[in-house]
Order: sequence, then C-alpha cells, then structure tokens
Amino acid sequence: MPTFHIEMFEGRSVEQKRQLAAALTETTCKVLGVEPQSVDIIFHDVKPENWATAGKLWSDPR
Amino acid sequence: MPTFHIEMFEGRSVEQKRQLAAALTETTCKVLGVEPQSVDIIFHDVKPENWATAGKLWSDPR
Amino acid sequence: MPTFHIEMFEGRSVEQKRQLAAALTETTCKVLGVEPQSVDIIFHDVKPENWATAGKLWSDPR
Amino acid sequence: MPTFHIEMFEGRSVEQKRQLAAALTETTCKVLGVEPQSVDIIFHDVKPENWATAGKLWSDPR
Amino acid sequence: MPTFHIEMFEGRSVEQKRQLAAALTETTCKVLGVEPQSVDIIFHDVKPENWATAGKLWSDPR
Amino acid sequence: MPTFHIEMFEGRSVEQKRQLAAALTETTCKVLGVEPQSVDIIFHDVKPENWATAGKLWSDPR
Repeated sequence: MPTFHIEMFEGRSVEQKRQLAAALTETTCKVLGVEPQSVDIIFHDVKPENWATAGKLWSDPR
Repeated sequence: MPTFHIEMFEGRSVEQKRQLAAALTETTCKVLGVEPQSVDIIFHDVKPENWATAGKLWSDPR
Repeated sequence: MPTFHIEMFEGRSVEQKRQLAAALTETTCKVLGVEPQSVDIIFHDVKPENWATAGKLWSDPR
Repeated sequence: MPTFHIEMFEGRSVEQKRQLAAALTETTCKVLGVEPQSVDIIFHDVKPENWATAGKLWSDPR
Repeated sequence: MPTFHIEMFEGRSVEQKRQLAAALTETTCKVLGVEPQSVDIIFHDVKPENWATAGKLWSDPR
Repeated sequence: MPTFHIEMFEGRSVEQKRQLAAALTETTCKVLGVEPQSVDIIFHDVKPENWATAGKLWSDPR
C-alpha cells in the first residue's frame, strides 16, 4: 500500500519520471517485501516561484 | 473541520466535481455529525504522466 | 485511482471510519464512474492542539 | 526542518508569495529557534472549481 | 481559505504551536488581505526516525 | 529539492526505513541528477483502521 507523493521542480521529462517510478517501486518492493501492484507514486511538479527555502523563492536570484 | 484532499486524474468536469463535493459533504455530515460549513474539499487534478502504479506511468500503455 | 486524504479531529470511532469509508467510496464510484477497487481513503487523526483556525488552537478555549 | 505546504486560491502575485515566504520563515525561526535554511515552503495554487466548502464549489455563486 | 500543513519534528510545546499559529495567521492576513477566520493551520509532528535528509534518518548520528 | 511523503502501514522497523531512505535517495540522485543533500523523505505510519481500499478498512477482514 505504500503511496508516494513526490514534490519536485517542474521541468523533469516524462522519461525521467518513467525511470524514477520504475526504480523507486523496485527498491520499495525489495526493502519492504510488498508487491509492485501495491505501490502508487504521484509526482507534483512545482514552479520555482512556488517553492521557498530560507525565506527566498527559488525563482529569485540567490 | 474535516478537510479532504482528493487526488484524481485530470479530465473530470466541473459538474462532476460539483456533484461529488455536494455528496461527499452530505455523507460526512451524516456519519460524523458535523456541520456542512466545517467540511472543506480540495481536488487535485493529476496528469497520467504524474501517476504510477506498479512502477509504470499511467500515460504509458499497460 | 482517486486517493483521499482526510484530516479530522482524533476521537472518531472505528465504526464511524468504517461507515464513512464505505459511503464515500460508493458516492465516488457513482459520480465518477470508477471501480471501488480504485478508491483509496487515508484518514489522518489530528489532535486539537495541532489544528488552528483564525490563529487559535482548537485545544484552547474559544 | 519545518516544511510548509500552503494551499490557497490561485491568483496571488509572485510579489505576494515573496513577501509571505520571507515573513513566515522569519516568524518560524523566532518561535521555534531554527535556522532559516531549514525552512521550506511550498505553495499550491488552487482553482476555485477545485475547492469546496459546505458542499459548494467556490467557482459557484454562494 | 489558505490552509497550511506544517511538518516539523515532534517535541514542540503547545505554547510554541500557539504562538506560531497566531503569528503565521497574522502575517498571512496582512500579506494576502484575507480574514483570520479563513486561515487553517495543521501541524504534523514527525519523529526523527520518520524523516531523512541526504538518505540518512535524523534519528541516526550525522 | 525533491521532497517525498510516503504513507505506509505502521509496523516497519527503523532498519527498513533506514535502508529505504538510503536507497530511494540514491536512485533519485541518479535519475534526476540532484545532490543527496537536496532530497528529503518523510514517512507517515498509517494504522490499518485509517486506510480503506474499495470502501473497506484494512483492519477489517477482507
């Protein structure tokens, strides 16, 4: 039943998501002993203007 | 105070969201004994390329 | 694939969660035309000291 | 390590997000005694048709 | 309508949460021009064994 | 900046979380080309009575 929510900056390609989903699922099944069918992964693409670290938006110069 | 986050594939119509919000709120009020005003529902539209089950993106052929 | 996260105050009984899960799933299947098997619901029990509205914790007198 | 997820209606300007991120981070550091670098804030812009209160979408007349 | 989810390590006192909720709400109302009543804040207390950065749990020596 | 939220049934050992965090971070860095320091993973332990699939709690007999 593991369900992943992964927030990351927008701009990753579908191919990167495809590889990431496959690899994360395989790893999870090995470590937790669960079936692939039970693993859901949801990606959230985040714009740099919607993410701040240390009080500064990532769309701003650092 | 119940607050719902509902992730589902993009493509549902506003009419479907309208019906769903009304029906889910009514059900929640009946079962939990809360007032409608206390129920918030937030929908998250997810692209098939952003959701994977069993390590495979839903935008890919299954 | 609809996945629900429902945050509500702790203290609801298992029987209330059982009824709520059954009813919300039935409603969702009717409105969206999806199969019950595709609906996941995750409840998050929240302590009143962990929820604030209008700047005031719900564990405090209102 | 505090990580904020803030859901709000779409339409806020980048300047509002910039000010909000700076002020929320400063407040958090003061109250919790953490370093700014440890505070992450992620904004989620929500369309009015994706948020319901009391069973009614915010895109509908109230 | 802004709704905050704040994940932070467990161990903060109710007094810290009380101060944080009040100050974050005040800041949000000023910057966004919303009413206090519309701001919800939910804290999630996270155990160090449930949070990893750089692949290492925070319950482990760094 | 990728931030993971992973919901799974309670009962996994700290050693399983340690292995999972290390492996997921390594995989993410390889596929996305990011630094380990930028990857945060937060686990959420969920009781079976708080998770339903197909309208039935996982604490109930299936």
